[in-house]
Amino acid sequence: MASESGKLWGGRFVGAVDPIMEKFNASIAYDRHLWEVDVQGSKAYSRGLEKAGLLTKAEMDQILHGLDKVAEEWAQGTFKLNSNDEDIHTANERRLKELIGATAGKLHTGRSRNDQVVTDLRLWMRQTCSTLSGLLWELIRTMVDRAEAERDVLFPGYTHLQRAQPIRWSHWILSGAIAGNPLGVDRELLRAAEFLFWASLCMTHLSRMAEDLILYCTKEFSFVQLSDAYSTGSSLMPQKKNPDSLELIRSKAGRVFGRCAGLLMTLKGLPSTYNKDLQEDKEAVFEVSDTMSAVLQVATGVISTLQIHQENMGQALSPDMLATDLAYYLVRKGMPFRQAHEASGKAVFMAETKGVALNQLSLQELQTISPLFSGDVICVWDYGHSVEQYGALGGTARSSVDWQIRQVRALLQAQQA
Amino acid sequence: MASESGKLWGGRFVGAVDPIMEKFNASIAYDRHLWEVDVQGSKAYSRGLEKAGLLTKAEMDQILHGLDKVAEEWAQGTFKLNSNDEDIHTANERRLKELIGATAGKLHTGRSRNDQVVTDLRLWMRQTCSTLSGLLWELIRTMVDRAEAERDVLFPGYTHLQRAQPIRWSHWILSGAIAGNPLGVDRELLRAAEFLFWASLCMTHLSRMAEDLILYCTKEFSFVQLSDAYSTGSSLMPQKKNPDSLELIRSKAGRVFGRCAGLLMTLKGLPSTYNKDLQEDKEAVFEVSDTMSAVLQVATGVISTLQIHQENMGQALSPDMLATDLAYYLVRKGMPFRQAHEASGKAVFMAETKGVALNQLSLQELQTISPLFSGDVICVWDYGHSVEQYGALGGTARSSVDWQIRQVRALLQAQQA
Amino acid sequence: MASESGKLWGGRFVGAVDPIMEKFNASIAYDRHLWEVDVQGSKAYSRGLEKAGLLTKAEMDQILHGLDKVAEEWAQGTFKLNSNDEDIHTANERRLKELIGATAGKLHTGRSRNDQVVTDLRLWMRQTCSTLSGLLWELIRTMVDRAEAERDVLFPGYTHLQRAQPIRWSHWILSGAIAGNPLGVDRELLRAAEFLFWASLCMTHLSRMAEDLILYCTKEFSFVQLSDAYSTGSSLMPQKKNPDSLELIRSKAGRVFGRCAGLLMTLKGLPSTYNKDLQEDKEAVFEVSDTMSAVLQVATGVISTLQIHQENMGQALSPDMLATDLAYYLVRKGMPFRQAHEASGKAVFMAETKGVALNQLSLQELQTISPLFSGDVICVWDYGHSVEQYGALGGTARSSVDWQIRQVRALLQAQQA
Amino acid sequence: MASESGKLWGGRFVGAVDPIMEKFNASIAYDRHLWEVDVQGSKAYSRGLEKAGLLTKAEMDQILHGLDKVAEEWAQGTFKLNSNDEDIHTANERRLKELIGATAGKLHTGRSRNDQVVTDLRLWMRQTCSTLSGLLWELIRTMVDRAEAERDVLFPGYTHLQRAQPIRWSHWILSGAIAGNPLGVDRELLRAAEFLFWASLCMTHLSRMAEDLILYCTKEFSFVQLSDAYSTGSSLMPQKKNPDSLELIRSKAGRVFGRCAGLLMTLKGLPSTYNKDLQEDKEAVFEVSDTMSAVLQVATGVISTLQIHQENMGQALSPDMLATDLAYYLVRKGMPFRQAHEASGKAVFMAETKGVALNQLSLQELQTISPLFSGDVICVWDYGHSVEQYGALGGTARSSVDWQIRQVRALLQAQQA
Repeated sequence: MASESGKLWGGRFVGAVDPIMEKFNASIAYDRHLWEVDVQGSKAYSRGLEKAGLLTKAEMDQILHGLDKVAEEWAQGTFKLNSNDEDIHTANERRLKELIGATAGKLHTGRSRNDQVVTDLRLWMRQTCSTLSGLLWELIRTMVDRAEAERDVLFPGYTHLQRAQPIRWSHWILSGAIAGNPLGVDRELLRAAEFLFWASLCMTHLSRMAEDLILYCTKEFSFVQLSDAYSTGSSLMPQKKNPDSLELIRSKAGRVFGRCAGLLMTLKGLPSTYNKDLQEDKEAVFEVSDTMSAVLQVATGVISTLQIHQENMGQALSPDMLATDLAYYLVRKGMPFRQAHEASGKAVFMAETKGVALNQLSLQELQTISPLFSGDVICVWDYGHSVEQYGALGGTARSSVDWQIRQVRALLQAQQA
Repeated sequence: MASESGKLWGGRFVGAVDPIMEKFNASIAYDRHLWEVDVQGSKAYSRGLEKAGLLTKAEMDQILHGLDKVAEEWAQGTFKLNSNDEDIHTANERRLKELIGATAGKLHTGRSRNDQVVTDLRLWMRQTCSTLSGLLWELIRTMVDRAEAERDVLFPGYTHLQRAQPIRWSHWILSGAIAGNPLGVDRELLRAAEFLFWASLCMTHLSRMAEDLILYCTKEFSFVQLSDAYSTGSSLMPQKKNPDSLELIRSKAGRVFGRCAGLLMTLKGLPSTYNKDLQEDKEAVFEVSDTMSAVLQVATGVISTLQIHQENMGQALSPDMLATDLAYYLVRKGMPFRQAHEASGKAVFMAETKGVALNQLSLQELQTISPLFSGDVICVWDYGHSVEQYGALGGTARSSVDWQIRQVRALLQAQQA
Repeated sequence: MASESGKLWGGRFVGAVDPIMEKFNASIAYDRHLWEVDVQGSKAYSRGLEKAGLLTKAEMDQILHGLDKVAEEWAQGTFKLNSNDEDIHTANERRLKELIGATAGKLHTGRSRNDQVVTDLRLWMRQTCSTLSGLLWELIRTMVDRAEAERDVLFPGYTHLQRAQPIRWSHWILSGAIAGNPLGVDRELLRAAEFLFWASLCMTHLSRMAEDLILYCTKEFSFVQLSDAYSTGSSLMPQKKNPDSLELIRSKAGRVFGRCAGLLMTLKGLPSTYNKDLQEDKEAVFEVSDTMSAVLQVATGVISTLQIHQENMGQALSPDMLATDLAYYLVRKGMPFRQAHEASGKAVFMAETKGVALNQLSLQELQTISPLFSGDVICVWDYGHSVEQYGALGGTARSSVDWQIRQVRALLQAQQA
Repeated sequence: MASESGKLWGGRFVGAVDPIMEKFNASIAYDRHLWEVDVQGSKAYSRGLEKAGLLTKAEMDQILHGLDKVAEEWAQGTFKLNSNDEDIHTANERRLKELIGATAGKLHTGRSRNDQVVTDLRLWMRQTCSTLSGLLWELIRTMVDRAEAERDVLFPGYTHLQRAQPIRWSHWILSGAIAGNPLGVDRELLRAAEFLFWASLCMTHLSRMAEDLILYCTKEFSFVQLSDAYSTGSSLMPQKKNPDSLELIRSKAGRVFGRCAGLLMTLKGLPSTYNKDLQEDKEAVFEVSDTMSAVLQVATGVISTLQIHQENMGQALSPDMLATDLAYYLVRKGMPFRQAHEASGKAVFMAETKGVALNQLSLQELQTISPLFSGDVICVWDYGHSVEQYGALGGTARSSVDWQIRQVRALLQAQQA
């Protein structure tokens, strides 16, 4: 049975509190982030107390003045933490008491430390979401600028990483710009779990954009070239220029999501009301916010300084990417689509067998597949014409791309207003 | 090097397609869920084609009629799948062609299978969210009914699982009811990842509610008793009655979140546009939807049939839970809160040392702590009075609970309208 | 307060058990997987009971005979489930009692259902690990066969997806083969969580192998061509041939890991001993085992039938990939490595500036960088020679690759013995 | 199209490298952890170079001496980082060159920075695993000490948190001690992902142990009392004493697993060989190692200072927990177990109906259930006797607990040897 001292089994713990436990328990190391919002929150709370008749006007003024001093000390880097300051809230309260005396004690009437933590985090989250939102809009603005400037560059659209149909380079950019803002950051008061999930989803989108650009940077694709500012050399191989910035963006999706997964696991099965486990939310949102901020700025820099190789993009277009257009040619002549698809497939196979490009099959050869082919089939073999035929919402026609650009610009303007 | 047959290294694969690959690739086993929305989507699409002049009125009517027949066959269980039916879309199209002939081929003009998959899943998601939303509201209605009927039952509020202050039983119920609907299910067109996250968050809330009730079911707490309909006996121990239903609810948070984690991991770093990897979203949302549906119904059943042990709840209230009230008593007499908190703490310590309940300290004893104590301190020792003093939003006063009940009822009515 | 019936708030639940709860609780739908091991386990247990004197020899024989009958019925598909059969264990016991009468009841002396579940799952896991292990070795055998046959094919090694140095194709294959078996599957009695993590790690490795092959299949790389048996066409674009098999392998890493994440989340914070939550482990291991089995077989098929394009691989080698060799040339002449690296970097830059390949710089030009360059520098420009110089463990020399092949073959033989 | 400067779209990036990118890319902030192993690794490598004839004996000595100086500077806190020191490896190399001149450049012959990173992390991991292993053994030693000292304390065993059968308190401790070491930490060279998973599994076990203790600390259970060193008070409620230490242990399971999930997600689908994404492994293992270290020490402190309330434990034992013993009584008299279970269940029901304890049913009453009951049934109602009857491996008999204690002690001794 336990001895009176309760320490039959371990001699290490002499004092009242195990120092490792104290450190384990204390959140001061990372909640310095909160000094500003903690002061703001306390100022608002003391005004509330005064309204409720729990502070006199004089007491409130004394507290407000003291809190301003505390904020000043933080801002100037002169605030001194004591070893007993367990968290930012006790630190600020302790300092306030030193500055204004016993009245400081009245500030906490009817407010538990947990109330304070919750309020502070909410204020911090509002500010953070606003900052991240600004960075996100900056990235989107950069993307839409490029989309507009480069809207006449064509290159292959891929599905399954196989060349599909010619598309505009702007298309790729705009799809990234729009996906970049999955949930909208207008819900400023997202709670921690939702914030982490929003960030995970946003990072997942960015990881996909990064993957595309890493591929486009390979020798084999050579569609784009990363600015030196976002590349790194190799310590062993003199010829290498590696897309480290994009690889880091891609990798952060894992980290951010890991935080989200971790928090949900922490929350799982927790008894209701407050448990200390909930403290985990703070470090998670702080780290994720820092990561997001860096990623968004680096992504903006990468997109803004990226060189595109328009010639290589053009050379990657090949006539077989117009096979769907060939099928539509037959549809316009009255053939049902499924049949036309099959006929076009036969033409692809014939060209492969003969070892020529699809557009080099003669009219006679095509007519062995369907008598509907005639001389005007030649109009199919034009990449520019191909992209222009999709004028619907989200299509590849220039007008359609212009429409998307105007859309995003309107959002940007609405944002700034 | 590879032989001509390309099969120098494995004799198993004789035919054109490895049968395991075929099964691996096919989604027909689980996308039966989609037959209804696939027919709906195709009907809408054929109307669109007619408007665009790509189908004549007669062709459209023929297709609509054929699709109705397809739907009828599914509804009556007479639809026969071929071994070549790779997915629900090809199955329905194949059957349509058998029923109406070549016109069927025109239905797919300008629509890829991926377009179709996306549309179908969106329609299915809208219906599913609507169903789940209904079940969620049913659970909420049940909870608010109990909250109203049992609003005069008091029991201990806990933080850190330590008894904190007396609260109303209705309070616990209402906090569950409100948290139960974390994001609102009004965003019917959530995409797969967001749906899975909404479900994860909802399940996390429910796992916490289940944890509370599992604790309240223990011999040690004995606050509630689960209906036999939601309990199970032990095959070994005759006296056991286990809260299996609640344990299953708690456990499903892991499963649902696992699906969310899995999908995000699948999406991470995927090149843009369509890749077959995206097929994973379907099984995930189907399984999660089924799980959510069962969990919400079982939770509704559990809450609806739960017996509460009002006496045990009352006996779990103890005078030390009024220590905060004791502090407020001093605040009302003019003492700053921090000082009052300390004084009340001293009283708790004195009672512990003397081995008596906090309310059994004599007035003289209390006055050794502070001269502000006087005979009216006796009013503090009343649990009913204690809960009534918190009348603010979310407080424990009966008026405050009533207000919450009215709030949720208003939401329920708005929902049904 | 609750009425006597305990059902004031919900009229749906009339019978003793909510039918949705019954279905929610029952595991029979998925634990059919266990019939064989359940019978095996019960046979072993009845032998144990006889040894302990708790069954007579005659009773044991009766039970063993009855269990054989039960197994026979399952094997022939004639076993009939009752609606009351909650799980495989009660089903088998119920049937045994029908077959042999009251003696059946003695089989469960001192054995709880949870003991039985644990034993059955352990037996099932042992068999499953053995099966998966076999499939894994089959994949490895296929890979090593190819590695041996194609060991003289060179192609670019990449880091950061940028061309680094020439390597042997066999190298890529062998690194996959070795990584494919991350933990060894010899720990046959892995518990559920470890099994799921092993599977996650194995799938993560396979997802990376799949990613490589998907890239190598692109028009831009064109290093390999997937057999038709493992490709799929597009419903819209006649020219497409998509690597669906590889995309599915890649995607399953998410699903498998999701199951692992889900189980750990379910376990987190669970009170010790048995809780119904633990039931989640079964469905997870069953699904993951099925997925792994399909993935391993499809991967074996893909690797076994893959065509490589040796010419394209060779053409992708370029002189700048020998820049490290150029530095080593200077090291051999006495220059410290860091300096040699810099000199080689200058040569790369010079070649880029002049628009020529690195091996087309004249001796005079090289000598402006370092006087150590002389006529024998010409020997550097030979890819075959380059790979031969790395003869250490894991190096690119043919002897080194041969050594790895022998290693894996030895493992394979040890496995079969 | 991009301008010559490549910066048409963003004016912020004036210098050669975006400063945010530089910070994003640099790992120096967290790889300070590695200075010691980096020096060790470089010393070993220079010895290897000398053996291979790539360094003279004199050069090697110069390098070894220089590296010792570098280590000394780190140890004394006088090492000064330059703003160009991208990582620990370049920092140490830069300093070595300052100290010994050009010979320093030879140290990197044939060694890429990635080789170095891998070696360093492996060395660090070996040291870390050894440290954590020591802490884990310390926790286990503490637990086994208590298990031995308190082996005669009985209390209720629970499943589903419902009281099941009487067990020894030592039982609970030992099951924790054994589960605490899930994989064994003898595999010192675990790679990052496996290390993170080992940590996740270990933390999951500890989260369950913490959950148990949090419950045992509640007023309702009152089985144990946490030392003040590991508890915290409430800022609002003077009477509260919260088990913060245990709640933090429980919460860290989420964080640690989140890191594991994050790394696997980062690895998913990554092309083979080195990509910068892999850098994520370092921060993950560093953070997890720190967390594990704190958790293990706090857990050791908690267990070592915990007071148990033997009386409360004993009072929580109730006769219905002997219902299984009652069934076994009938089995010993010849009744098949299933029938005996049912008979005992009837006795439980009869006692409940009559409102008496199970052991207060008269012999006549019991005989209405089965004529096999006779006067000796009285021996069943003894908790000490009940636990003594399970003498098998892992059983509750004192001899069985003693055996487990000797087992763990033997492991501890083997560990220290």
